[in-house]
Amino acid sequence: MKYRLYYWPEIQGRGEFVRLALEYAGADYVDVWRLSGISSLPNKEKFKNPPFAPPYLVAGRKAIAQTANILLYLGSRLRLAPKDEAGRLWVHQLQLTIADWLVEVHDCHHPIGSGLYYEEQKRESKRRAADFRAARLPKYLGYFEDILASGRGGFLLGKTLTYADLSLFQMVAGLHYALPRAMARLERRHLRLAALHGRVSACPRLAAYLASGRRIPFNRQGIFRHYPELDAR
Amino acid sequence: MKYRLYYWPEIQGRGEFVRLALEYAGADYVDVWRLSGISSLPNKEKFKNPPFAPPYLVAGRKAIAQTANILLYLGSRLRLAPKDEAGRLWVHQLQLTIADWLVEVHDCHHPIGSGLYYEEQKRESKRRAADFRAARLPKYLGYFEDILASGRGGFLLGKTLTYADLSLFQMVAGLHYALPRAMARLERRHLRLAALHGRVSACPRLAAYLASGRRIPFNRQGIFRHYPELDAR
Repeated sequence: MKYRLYYWPEIQGRGEFVRLALEYAGADYVDVWRLSGISSLPNKEKFKNPPFAPPYLVAGRKAIAQTANILLYLGSRLRLAPKDEAGRLWVHQLQLTIADWLVEVHDCHHPIGSGLYYEEQKRESKRRAADFRAARLPKYLGYFEDILASGRGGFLLGKTLTYADLSLFQMVAGLHYALPRAMARLERRHLRLAALHGRVSACPRLAAYLASGRRIPFNRQGIFRHYPELDAR
Repeated sequence: MKYRLYYWPEIQGRGEFVRLALEYAGADYVDVWRLSGISSLPNKEKFKNPPFAPPYLVAGRKAIAQTANILLYLGSRLRLAPKDEAGRLWVHQLQLTIADWLVEVHDCHHPIGSGLYYEEQKRESKRRAADFRAARLPKYLGYFEDILASGRGGFLLGKTLTYADLSLFQMVAGLHYALPRAMARLERRHLRLAALHGRVSACPRLAAYLASGRRIPFNRQGIFRHYPELDAR
């Protein structure tokens, strides 16, 4: 199966969670908008199920949107999720919690409106980011740290890596970029998360991807943004 | 199968999307925290998969969290989703877009922090709500209106009601409560959404539920809140 991914070519964004799954599994895929330089959806007639927003994955006749939904679909095909229903639902539950977390990261620099510039909501961003660092970030980190601590093997489900581990790697990587001081302080209490980050990035295929030009660098257009004034002092 | 739902007993909130599915299907369920008056999670030892936050559904040995994930699980069991994979993914994709929308509704009155009172972020709320009414609300309404217009039968998938229709009903109902003036203006251009709301609320089982004491009234503790200063003028 050849997969076609449609996502903004300038940022990691939500598409990166899909890219990581495809890259880790060594799947045959095309990052369509990066390749073509044109960001437009495929022919409407061909796709009955319109997406609200990218990312959008096309697989044969199937066209799927919503990051977690794409990963639900890919999970069983790329061996990145358990086969039994209970296991699949548990991984999906973890992924949806990561999705909630990601919205809160985004809203640190866009608390008022996603269509406005950061500079237009900088004051509100400082308040929101302070609340996020104090109340929300420790809660999310602690939740995933506890799950890693409850199992053995270093991954969320124990010894087997799933797409949720790849997404959790991305959260840790992105937060280190965006909030280096806050993360440096919190990481001492979340050593399993740091270990997971290291373990995932050392997987041969993923290490090759991260070192390649296919991995778009973090930047100030993406979801994870580094503004020193939003970080801890 | 007897289902046990764990969710805050004072609000509709995210739990309501699950309640609507259970009620519409006439499922055998207990709204545990409403019944007991005590809001505490079941014995940890019994549940391997800890939720980040309610709602939480227990079905036999399965324990599932994240609203959209619970509906994914219930969809096939309560005949509220197609049986084929493509259909199931499409309904789930619609549900995840509704989940994104719901976060934006919540953040209209909590743009800075979910742990702070509305009064502590009232100024920011006014800006966020104005952006939501002008840019985001029409985009979401238009997206779902277009999908209803593309099919025949008045539901998102055509003639068959799915859990996403029940959730869309809840969005329209909640937005009418929270932003009556903004919705009155927008509704003229979204007649199919208004018709869907009417069609769903007229289903006998759902009509009975909505008229019963089991339906918690909208209030200022929930996700949909009516603050006149956040509505259109």
